[in-house]
Amino acid sequence: MTNPTAAMLVIGDEILSGRTRDSNSHHLAGELTRHGIRLMEIRMVADEEADIVAALNALRDRWDHVFTSGGIGPTHDDITADAVARAFGVSIDVREDARALLAAHYQRSGQELNAARLRMARIPEGAALIDNPVSVAPGFTIGNVHVMAGVPNVFQAMVASVLPKLTGGAPLLSQSLSVLRGEGEIAEGFAALAAEYPELSLGSYPFQRNGAYGTSLVIRGTDPVQLEAAMKKLTALFGETA
Amino acid sequence: MTNPTAAMLVIGDEILSGRTRDSNSHHLAGELTRHGIRLMEIRMVADEEADIVAALNALRDRWDHVFTSGGIGPTHDDITADAVARAFGVSIDVREDARALLAAHYQRSGQELNAARLRMARIPEGAALIDNPVSVAPGFTIGNVHVMAGVPNVFQAMVASVLPKLTGGAPLLSQSLSVLRGEGEIAEGFAALAAEYPELSLGSYPFQRNGAYGTSLVIRGTDPVQLEAAMKKLTALFGETA
Repeated sequence: MTNPTAAMLVIGDEILSGRTRDSNSHHLAGELTRHGIRLMEIRMVADEEADIVAALNALRDRWDHVFTSGGIGPTHDDITADAVARAFGVSIDVREDARALLAAHYQRSGQELNAARLRMARIPEGAALIDNPVSVAPGFTIGNVHVMAGVPNVFQAMVASVLPKLTGGAPLLSQSLSVLRGEGEIAEGFAALAAEYPELSLGSYPFQRNGAYGTSLVIRGTDPVQLEAAMKKLTALFGETA
Repeated sequence: MTNPTAAMLVIGDEILSGRTRDSNSHHLAGELTRHGIRLMEIRMVADEEADIVAALNALRDRWDHVFTSGGIGPTHDDITADAVARAFGVSIDVREDARALLAAHYQRSGQELNAARLRMARIPEGAALIDNPVSVAPGFTIGNVHVMAGVPNVFQAMVASVLPKLTGGAPLLSQSLSVLRGEGEIAEGFAALAAEYPELSLGSYPFQRNGAYGTSLVIRGTDPVQLEAAMKKLTALFGETA
């Protein structure tokens, strides 16, 4: 498959301590799949600059796009923008267009644009702002890295701002068949079918439903004709849906 | 803090495509925190042997423990055990004790221990089995790597089998205060408090509740006396709970 590739970097101690359950990577995974971009890797790291820099450089070297979430708020533990600047070897400072966005927003809401809030206008040199229709403070894109907020509704709005600007590939299609048999029973025939269609990806996922054990058989690929043909053979092999 | 460290490696195309939402890393994060082991990093990779091997070697070199989930079932896309053997440079084959467990299980349930199911008895040389009270097919520990199933109830049972055997540290305690103010308003005082207690970790997490905006202020650490003192100052600074 020649679809563009991507990685996700989730930043924040609260994910690793178990306090917060990350939902952004699952949202991004679905959006990228619909857009024809293959998500290849997800990493989650703590609020430590060296760790963020190392992960970011490994991911942006290897994949076409990197999406980050978290660490761009106003508090002392929000260090993502500085870490990104460090990773790219560029300077970072309060930028006028970002400052103006925040100033207008806090004026409208009768709040003060204090030093802490002004930190959210710190943008690495050469970056383009990502629109934040929810709470104004922008994300930014630098090189192939898209830096977004951790708060889920803000993250989702920023993904919606960024994705239409990226070149996708043929949509990644999938079809599935659920059977009331264990994985061990269908494995041989399923493996043979996978070997027959090397350009498709075949996966099996056990489930339990009302006390019964079964397996979801999923075929993914970009060629609808191949997908249809493989699904026909799969259904012939393992019968009707559970 | 001198608590032992850990990383998690989630293996499976279905996570990256957005079909399945990973819940194992969040479960593990909470269990490790209670056990006094610090989860430092999470990675999620596809069912590709080279990617699994590279991630595994990076993580086991750096952290005290690595926990993996996924890819130890009977189908062709279950390649975790082979990847682990490759990472450690050891051989892998069907092992008699694992085979005996499966044979007894399938005999009881009147099913055949066919070639696909027998794959689940392939164990890298030198590994110790991890008990699976849910569905019998074992996980295994080799070196500092604990290899477990991806199905959540099986993963959880295996974590419960493994954790009591590992040396934990002082429990990681946390206390939090919710205030009906934005992060930008509390950032300055909160940062000063963080600087006063370098051994504690202070984090702030914005929330929306019934249309109101607020911030959860969380203090984490292993020393209950310090934690108590910092919480007292935090409450004095920002008042009562929202």
